[in-house]
Amino acid sequence: MRNLILVVTRRTLLSITVLAGFGAGALAQQPATDPLPSWNDGAAKKSITDFVARVTRQDGPDFVKPADRIAVFDNDGTLWAEQPIYFQGTFLADRVRAMAALNAGLVSRQPFKAIVKNDREAITKMGEHDIAELLAATHAGMTTDAFAQTAKQWIDSAKHPRFNRLYKQLAYRPQLELLDYLRGNDFKTFIVSGGGVEFIRAFSQDVYGIPPQQVVGSSGQTQFELRGNNAVLVKLPKLGSIDDKEGKPVNINLHIGQRPVLAFGNSDGDLPMLQYTAGAPGLRLMLIVHHDDAEREWAYDRQSKIGKLDRALDEAKTRGWTVVSMKNDWRTVFPGVEEGRAVDAPK
Amino acid sequence: MRNLILVVTRRTLLSITVLAGFGAGALAQQPATDPLPSWNDGAAKKSITDFVARVTRQDGPDFVKPADRIAVFDNDGTLWAEQPIYFQGTFLADRVRAMAALNAGLVSRQPFKAIVKNDREAITKMGEHDIAELLAATHAGMTTDAFAQTAKQWIDSAKHPRFNRLYKQLAYRPQLELLDYLRGNDFKTFIVSGGGVEFIRAFSQDVYGIPPQQVVGSSGQTQFELRGNNAVLVKLPKLGSIDDKEGKPVNINLHIGQRPVLAFGNSDGDLPMLQYTAGAPGLRLMLIVHHDDAEREWAYDRQSKIGKLDRALDEAKTRGWTVVSMKNDWRTVFPGVEEGRAVDAPK
Repeated sequence: MRNLILVVTRRTLLSITVLAGFGAGALAQQPATDPLPSWNDGAAKKSITDFVARVTRQDGPDFVKPADRIAVFDNDGTLWAEQPIYFQGTFLADRVRAMAALNAGLVSRQPFKAIVKNDREAITKMGEHDIAELLAATHAGMTTDAFAQTAKQWIDSAKHPRFNRLYKQLAYRPQLELLDYLRGNDFKTFIVSGGGVEFIRAFSQDVYGIPPQQVVGSSGQTQFELRGNNAVLVKLPKLGSIDDKEGKPVNINLHIGQRPVLAFGNSDGDLPMLQYTAGAPGLRLMLIVHHDDAEREWAYDRQSKIGKLDRALDEAKTRGWTVVSMKNDWRTVFPGVEEGRAVDAPK
Repeated sequence: MRNLILVVTRRTLLSITVLAGFGAGALAQQPATDPLPSWNDGAAKKSITDFVARVTRQDGPDFVKPADRIAVFDNDGTLWAEQPIYFQGTFLADRVRAMAALNAGLVSRQPFKAIVKNDREAITKMGEHDIAELLAATHAGMTTDAFAQTAKQWIDSAKHPRFNRLYKQLAYRPQLELLDYLRGNDFKTFIVSGGGVEFIRAFSQDVYGIPPQQVVGSSGQTQFELRGNNAVLVKLPKLGSIDDKEGKPVNINLHIGQRPVLAFGNSDGDLPMLQYTAGAPGLRLMLIVHHDDAEREWAYDRQSKIGKLDRALDEAKTRGWTVVSMKNDWRTVFPGVEEGRAVDAPK
């Protein structure tokens, strides 16, 4: 019920103003009640609206009760962009540079050196696993409270070089609409990402309307410490869990405890999560973003180092999963700069 | 908002009928709107209602916005009884006996032998750590789906020897009221238990109105497997996380990602969780159930093997946390047999 109530924020008002001025022509093509105005009509959009209609029809054969309406989304490349390197990699590089300014000796060795020297070849090769390891090394000794503050400061100020806008404003507008639409139909929306869980939590509520406890991600280990009466958790230089590939269904079970009925990914790292969602009785919806839009975003799939989409693309075709073409299925890719947040996110 | 709507279930109607017939005298002592009728008036109850009033007063100095109203509850000894052994220990023993019936050789060795022979001395010594290890050994090779079904069957049929009622009907009535009351005030309620997360999820929604993703507990590791197109998770004989003592705040950070504003425990295993909750700015409420009622339940604290309450009791007194006397603060301990579930739990 709560999600049906639209919170009219300053940004919502701004969005309405912007749309009224510049977007009226496009909006006029859609029925007034279209919940997904940034999605072009077509098979992908129809697969979503049909699915939602069927699982919410109380007397229908595919009805899913609200408590079981679990939807999981990958983050990098699915909810926001991930090129030319995972945004968290840039966050990490910025952190290393800040450390270098304070202590030159600390960054005389690899992999810190590569980052400080902006060795793009080495940086581009970093997988999510490397990032998680580097994060652990870089942030060991910090409290989780201090880390959260650092991540929040970065996300509120760092800009993407190509688009010259905040990274958090590179969340995909069609996906923000989809998250709102699902919550409006009593779905619980979760992020299940290879990225660091504490990094994503720094902006998930603000950008996606997803609260911290609905974010599952990679993690480092922490240690409980009492400093007088002040209890803190200190980050250790030890990996906890890598939430990628087979780690995604494993962590869905550990954190969510239910099989999703909808899963949305964009790479082979999401394949086990899609298979896990598909592998249960009842109606299920599996979706993949296909990055085929070099003009508005990027075009990459089978050969990409970041966001490689190969086996999952084949399996999607074989099993009839929905492949979303960014070029054809999305009318708009990014929101206006003032709109880059979930409509129903609390202020 | 959603939680303010009472779902009138068959059981709610039964409860109303029962109360109307037998409890009218007691209820007449309370204002019609008392959200905690099973709590006697006194300092403990007042600490709860004062806290809720203060954090929900929108223009008050202690206001906490709904998104930050995180309440965590230990399970064994806090939400339901835990004597003479943790109920999950009995579940485990029943599983071992079922295995023995199928394969006598398998249970010729310890610790299985002790359980099959009902060696109460050995069983009573099992801590939550032992139970988690035994669970892993007993259930390795099962899928998580099969385990969930087994646990559900047990919880729907197994009875406690002293009370001759289902274990799940030994949830504390005052705590069921408290969970409802908190949710009615836009709190999110979580279980943070040393017990096995998948075991508790088999009944948390039905009994407490707490969905699977709001249960944090001890866990074994699982492995993703594809059986044709059927993706499953198989339980491995390896421990994942022990969610007890310092493990509780560590897992609160990993799973919930926010500091709670209310924590309720009953033993020294809950002390770090209480300290973590206390160790943040703003109004916080820390509570401890003190089992001092041998007549209606049990009386135990500093010397008990199960639910030992010693250091936490001292710290509660020093720091002004709320110690709830079962004998004095709870008008009723257990619900009527037909009432043993959360009022707002879906059917």
